[in-house]
Order: sequence, then structure tokens, then C-alpha cells
Amino acid sequence: MKKNLTLINGKFKDSISVFDRGLAYGDGFFETMQWIGKKNESLKGVEFWNRHFKRITKSAKILKINIPNKNIFADYKKKILTAAQKEGLYKGILKIIITRGVGGRGYSYESNMKPTIIFIVFPNAPSKIIESVNVKICKSTISNNPDISGLKHLNRLDSVNARSEWKNKKIFEGIFIDNKKNILEGTMTNIFFVKNKSLVTPSIISSGIKGIMREVVLVYGKKFFNEVIIREIRKHEIENFEEMFLTNSIIKVLPVKKFGKKKFSISNSTMELINFFQKIKNLEIA
Amino acid sequence: MKKNLTLINGKFKDSISVFDRGLAYGDGFFETMQWIGKKNESLKGVEFWNRHFKRITKSAKILKINIPNKNIFADYKKKILTAAQKEGLYKGILKIIITRGVGGRGYSYESNMKPTIIFIVFPNAPSKIIESVNVKICKSTISNNPDISGLKHLNRLDSVNARSEWKNKKIFEGIFIDNKKNILEGTMTNIFFVKNKSLVTPSIISSGIKGIMREVVLVYGKKFFNEVIIREIRKHEIENFEEMFLTNSIIKVLPVKKFGKKKFSISNSTMELINFFQKIKNLEIA
Repeated sequence: MKKNLTLINGKFKDSISVFDRGLAYGDGFFETMQWIGKKNESLKGVEFWNRHFKRITKSAKILKINIPNKNIFADYKKKILTAAQKEGLYKGILKIIITRGVGGRGYSYESNMKPTIIFIVFPNAPSKIIESVNVKICKSTISNNPDISGLKHLNRLDSVNARSEWKNKKIFEGIFIDNKKNILEGTMTNIFFVKNKSLVTPSIISSGIKGIMREVVLVYGKKFFNEVIIREIRKHEIENFEEMFLTNSIIKVLPVKKFGKKKFSISNSTMELINFFQKIKNLEIA
Repeated sequence: MKKNLTLINGKFKDSISVFDRGLAYGDGFFETMQWIGKKNESLKGVEFWNRHFKRITKSAKILKINIPNKNIFADYKKKILTAAQKEGLYKGILKIIITRGVGGRGYSYESNMKPTIIFIVFPNAPSKIIESVNVKICKSTISNNPDISGLKHLNRLDSVNARSEWKNKKIFEGIFIDNKKNILEGTMTNIFFVKNKSLVTPSIISSGIKGIMREVVLVYGKKFFNEVIIREIRKHEIENFEEMFLTNSIIKVLPVKKFGKKKFSISNSTMELINFFQKIKNLEIA
């Protein structure tokens, strides 16, 4: 594939109106997922598609954006992934951006606006075998807003600012601390800690994103750990945890070697979880 | 003018790449201003242009976006406003959107990225003689983030959500209360209160926009009021104020008649301030 493929409301094109409210106000949301094809065979599909679509529905409802039904999304998905396969790509990243659509000036909007549905296929990043990574605490503040917390909305300046804090390639991710000194999430990942075979992840109440992979680990984590707990995690607790890992729909589960100066190990349970997700490729694909 | 005029990086066009980071992450900022031309005469210009450009420079610096110099901006301004005059528009709104530019996937960015500079001319809204307006308190939460507070960045979901709270045309504006129960600003305006000939406006420390018109009122307000104070204003203080008005670059100074159930009057000082800004049209235009 020579360049990224883009589909807007079902048509292959790569530009949007300057009056799109996604640009003007960040009035929309997005999803990022892994898709898998097969050479000389029919398309396989997108990992955890039903979960992603469910979140699309939920985000659209919260932001009051009228999205088309699931069949239309399935058509767009088939169209762009088939085109990607024809161009010789058999695995990659699918990003869906949904905005409220093209509007005039001013924050108010008509309830019958036609949303802009953008599908983008990116090739996967060249795979390096990474066993575990280093992370740091971000100085940047994460916005606090319970109304839109959890959503993967287009207002991502916090993550952009935070990601610009480091250039050191040995640092894989930066972790946000909220204004109550709770450990929250990474700029592009959710985070989990392990202690005494218990899996713990921060509650995302007033800041942050409830990632699909976070949801999936909360479901499947029970297979490998004694319990799975969602709660506030104080910054000073880092010292007490035995393990830490990052999740997102592309990296799945990625262990952390060092968080600042704190070093972590990798247990058998975590290795089993990682292996499970390496095998899960045939699971929940649609 | 049949349709809105749009200029992108100096060229008349009306679409941007789907890979623009303004769309992907709200990675940019904007300015809205009033421009004034004159039939059969050469262009006049933009009100408070130097102040707007100064804020553009400041926002770009905070977000680390490399913008071109002031002459380039002046060229773009002349080009689009001259075109608008040729199409028969002699007064309108100029909106400038600046994004970090077109990028790939991921929050990180190269420091040498070429920004997208968008100039849009809108006709003024049909003028209705409004003497004073009604406002309400918004239920929607405003994001709290001291890192980017004050900036008119593209992450405006808070205002979009808040503006969707009411359809009653008798309500002109909704006012945000922050998480400490301070009165902060409107969805599209800054706010001022008056008591004993003192002008008081909320400090914009961790949420909100430091509007150009707010700045201008802080400077010129001293002519008409005994003192001008920037401080935290508690919600319950509304009862104690004698007057309230809204500001932005288009409406200038607009008195509030009723805020919820609280009724306000209009003093001579405020009328003088309003008259001053009606005459100011020849001041600070460039």
C-alpha cells in the first residue's frame, strides 16, 4: 500500500470541509483498532469489532451525534479493508473518526446534523520485539471533566502536550497523575498494576479514557488473576506494586520494566495473559 | 457574498486533509474577530488586530506551533478581506484557525511541522437591537487544566455540550461554574460584574478563555469605573452584584438583564463603556 487509505461517509477521499465541527471544536470522537486480513483469502476483520462498535454507539449517545446503523459501519469497514487487501496490505490499524458534521459558526448545532464518518487504514508500525518498556510520570495536567470522561473524544491536547515532554526513545509512555495525586492512565494506554496475584486498574471517573483493551483485560483477567479491582490508585502506591503493564488495542498487553526509578518484574500470570492475547487473534474478530 | 470565503495557507480552498492534527486531536487554536471594510474605498481592517495577533503568538508559543511571521498573517488578512469586499461584503467576522499541521498517527509530533493557517470570513449575523439579555447557569462541567487554560484552543467540547443545554431563544448565554463553585465565563463570552462602581471579572486560572474583549475592557474599563478587579467570584455572590455584562470580540459589551432569577440594572458607567466601544470602531483597527 503506497499511501494511507481514507474513506469519508463511504467514499474514497482524503479531505474534509474546513467547516467540519471536528476541526472547529473537536466535536466528535474516534476509535483505533487492529484489523487482520489474509493473502489470497477473504477478509478476516477487526479485533473486538463488536466492543468497538458498542463504544461508538455509547460515545455518540453521550455527545448526541446521530450515527448510522451498524450495517452501514460494517459496509464501510468491508469497503476499506477490501481495498487495503487489494493493495497488498493484510494487517493494519483501522481508525474511525466521527464528527458531528459540517456546520456554521457557533457552538450550537441542529439536532438533525449529518455526521462525518471517517475510516482510515494505517499500516502497522514495523514490529520490534519489545519485551517490556520504561515509562515516566508526565508533568502535563490532564483535564478534569466527569461529563465527557471515559470517551475517546477529539479533545486530545492533554495527550499531545504530555507526549511532547520527552524525546528519549527509551521512554515508551508517559503516565498522567490527576489533580488528586491519583495515577490515571498513559498518554495512549490504560494501565494495570499487580500485587499478590490481584490485578488493579485506576477508575476513570473524571479524567481519562476507558479503553477497549482495558475492558477486555477486565473481562479476561479473571482467568489468570485472583481478582480484578477498579479503584483510585495513589501515586505513592507505585512502590508497593510488583508488576505494571500497559494496554491498548494495538499493543494489547505490554509489561513495564521501569516506572521512573521503580523496577517491576513479570509474573507467570501476566505472561499467561500476554500469551492469551497473542492467541486471541481469532477471538472476537468481526 | 454567496458563500463563506476560506483561505488555507494563503490559497483559496475550503478543505483540509483528514490527517490534519486539528481534526485528529484538536491540536491547535483559533481567534474570532470583527473586520470592517468600506464600500468603494480601500479596506479598513480588523478591530484589535495587534492584540489578536499577540494572542496568536502567545497561543502558538504555549502549544509549540511554529507560525509564520506577522507579515504573512497581514498578507492573508488583506487577501481574504479584499476578496470579501469584491464580493460585496463590507463588514463581517474573521475567524483564524491554526493547527499544528498534517501528521501521521500518534500524539508525538516533529518540531519542524508546517502549521495549517485557515482564514474564514463569515458575514455578520443579522443585527437585532438587543439592549440586554437573559443568561442561565450551565449544568455542564468545564474542563480544568491550568496548562492550557486561557487559550482559545480547538478542544471546545465543553462549550458544545453546554450550548446544547437550552433551546429557549430568550436565553442568550450559559455561564460555567467551575468545580470550586466559582463563576467562570459564558460558553462564548467572558463576564463582568459591577458593584459600587467597581468592575469585577473572574480570574481564568485553570479553566476558561482569556478573551481579547475581556483584555480590552480591563484596559479601558478604568475610564468609567473606580477600579477593575480580577478575582475568584463565588456563585452565591451573584446576589450582591448590581450589574452584569458579557463580552466578546463580536458583541463587545452586552448587559445582562436576568441571570436565573437575579435581575440586574444598567448604570451610566456601563452605558458609557458600551457607547465608548460603539465609537471605538476606528480605534485599534489594523
